[in-house]
Amino acid sequence: MTSARLEAFSDGVFAVAITLLALDLAVAGPGHGSLAHQLADHWPSFVAYVVSFFVVGITWVNHHALVDTFVKVDRKLLFLNLVLLLFVVAIPFATSTMATYLRGGGDDAHLATALYGVVLEGMGVSFAAIFVWSLRRGRRAVPLPEDAVRTAVLRFGVGSIAYLVAIGVAFLSAPVSLAIIAGLAVYYMFEQTPAT
Amino acid sequence: MTSARLEAFSDGVFAVAITLLALDLAVAGPGHGSLAHQLADHWPSFVAYVVSFFVVGITWVNHHALVDTFVKVDRKLLFLNLVLLLFVVAIPFATSTMATYLRGGGDDAHLATALYGVVLEGMGVSFAAIFVWSLRRGRRAVPLPEDAVRTAVLRFGVGSIAYLVAIGVAFLSAPVSLAIIAGLAVYYMFEQTPAT
Amino acid sequence: MTSARLEAFSDGVFAVAITLLALDLAVAGPGHGSLAHQLADHWPSFVAYVVSFFVVGITWVNHHALVDTFVKVDRKLLFLNLVLLLFVVAIPFATSTMATYLRGGGDDAHLATALYGVVLEGMGVSFAAIFVWSLRRGRRAVPLPEDAVRTAVLRFGVGSIAYLVAIGVAFLSAPVSLAIIAGLAVYYMFEQTPAT
Amino acid sequence: MTSARLEAFSDGVFAVAITLLALDLAVAGPGHGSLAHQLADHWPSFVAYVVSFFVVGITWVNHHALVDTFVKVDRKLLFLNLVLLLFVVAIPFATSTMATYLRGGGDDAHLATALYGVVLEGMGVSFAAIFVWSLRRGRRAVPLPEDAVRTAVLRFGVGSIAYLVAIGVAFLSAPVSLAIIAGLAVYYMFEQTPAT
Repeated sequence: MTSARLEAFSDGVFAVAITLLALDLAVAGPGHGSLAHQLADHWPSFVAYVVSFFVVGITWVNHHALVDTFVKVDRKLLFLNLVLLLFVVAIPFATSTMATYLRGGGDDAHLATALYGVVLEGMGVSFAAIFVWSLRRGRRAVPLPEDAVRTAVLRFGVGSIAYLVAIGVAFLSAPVSLAIIAGLAVYYMFEQTPAT
Repeated sequence: MTSARLEAFSDGVFAVAITLLALDLAVAGPGHGSLAHQLADHWPSFVAYVVSFFVVGITWVNHHALVDTFVKVDRKLLFLNLVLLLFVVAIPFATSTMATYLRGGGDDAHLATALYGVVLEGMGVSFAAIFVWSLRRGRRAVPLPEDAVRTAVLRFGVGSIAYLVAIGVAFLSAPVSLAIIAGLAVYYMFEQTPAT
Repeated sequence: MTSARLEAFSDGVFAVAITLLALDLAVAGPGHGSLAHQLADHWPSFVAYVVSFFVVGITWVNHHALVDTFVKVDRKLLFLNLVLLLFVVAIPFATSTMATYLRGGGDDAHLATALYGVVLEGMGVSFAAIFVWSLRRGRRAVPLPEDAVRTAVLRFGVGSIAYLVAIGVAFLSAPVSLAIIAGLAVYYMFEQTPAT
Repeated sequence: MTSARLEAFSDGVFAVAITLLALDLAVAGPGHGSLAHQLADHWPSFVAYVVSFFVVGITWVNHHALVDTFVKVDRKLLFLNLVLLLFVVAIPFATSTMATYLRGGGDDAHLATALYGVVLEGMGVSFAAIFVWSLRRGRRAVPLPEDAVRTAVLRFGVGSIAYLVAIGVAFLSAPVSLAIIAGLAVYYMFEQTPAT
């Protein structure tokens, strides 16, 4: 198996997962109050949709940049990649649950936002695990220089800790937690996993 | 990252989004009046399905024709492309909301059709932004001649203004607004973004 | 645009459409009678799933075999291909409607099965239109010999008429109509559109 | 048709099927008890999601490894592959039915788990049929050595029998049956169909 095949399958899963996010945008329809009211009431779904869309989109970009450098695909990598995709595919569920409870308000909004953070943390950690896998000799076309490794480890550390913070903060304030996650997406947009 | 990868991912998203459009065709089933009556009552869903199907399909064709000419893919392009896909993925939601309220009648049909126009306007503007990105030296295999740029700018202008008109008209007459959007789809089928 | 891109996008749409077929298999869950009873009651969904799965799968195989021979892709082909996909994407809806009404029984089962036939007829006719498009000089890598054209025309004729018969028969007996459609799928599995 | 096309289409179907698995994770939302309670109550869905995700993921890996060796694609292979995909696509349905009834408890949990086993058995048997197809001279790039064939037959035998055992055990204990299926997924992760 080449890394091209691994990417093609992963691309398919990313594409479907990112598109399923939009299923949660649906409003209840006539007989549930005016549409304007329903749309206004629905704001957490729209915010959550945009945040998750960019989280998945940027993860896809970084996943591609990373996997593209691999010259070898073994069983361990396939397994790690499946674990990553397991979390990616769970994002529409976590997004929709969070949005539903942010709408409904109440204490469960805290737990729902924390759950969202847990799925993202799982995704981040499996992504980091793939990166660690790639550091062994003979797995990348060109070995990564020492300082690039240090930078990458720092970056994964920032992400893992920020998601943990977001999970903790979720129990105090769901919107602040979501803002941390959105900020992290912006961070990862500019800070790419070093590919070469 | 090459433009081929960008296209492959975008193709996946377009393909899933276009297929999800059909989920809204579903009728309520036995016990909700005769099937013939339900299907007749359902006409806005069928019209909206056909219009959105061609809007997404033609956008895909033009997206491909445009992206294919790029020799460089940078972070800015990836971001602009994600914004475009964000709107593409929202089309099944906007289509289904419009169809539901066109069926239910009432004042909300105006707002629902305007919302549909807003999503299409967002898609059109992000598409234009990708085009503008491509005009910088070194981003296309062959620089676009001046007059082709003028033609394209004109064409994007027509689209952006037509969608804005459709949004405004939606508050007067939803069917007329939808007719403008359908007409624009036919226009874009024949008027392609210049690729070379 | 090359035929490879056209195929890649079409493949995506076929793959999603064929997978969405399974969404209709869902049973109502606990509290709606024993599971054994529900599954038995659900037989039209299982039959319809298998028939539609092979109809879509075989259409994909034949679509690929046909499109692969094209050296030119123009706007007209893109449009015809979108029309074909419009019907392919509607198959899960038509399948699910037919299965629902076959289960519920009553007169509407006739109309629902006829509707299913109409979608398949639409698919067959658009497929034939793509074939006709390909006969013009310079569109295939190798022009099709006269007798291969005759065979193909005969074959498309058989399909178009058989689907029309199935639509008519649907109003007399839905199961017989479905059997004709299933038989046609078997026929197309062995009788391929000539590619060279 | 080349094996590359067959793989591309199959990849698409695998990717969509694996992503649809997550649709069953959805909780009922506010007004159905606390979220914590709902998530706890939902455990069979999470377990079933993880098991099915790896079953589909590993089948994809092994499918790719097998098909990649084929130099010839004929109608029989296409048909066998469609049968395999028919079962793959049915996995989200079988998973969701099993999870629902494991949650609801009662006798139907046995039947639902057995149904899940039947779908996996069907997938395993069609996979084995593709392998048997590949043994004929001229179908693989390099003929498989005798002992590799013996190993593979043994492996498929283990799988087929284990799934049958899981189906039988389902009527005694649904969780034990699910554990056998999960164990088999782990087994297939390490024991790959010989490709060369």
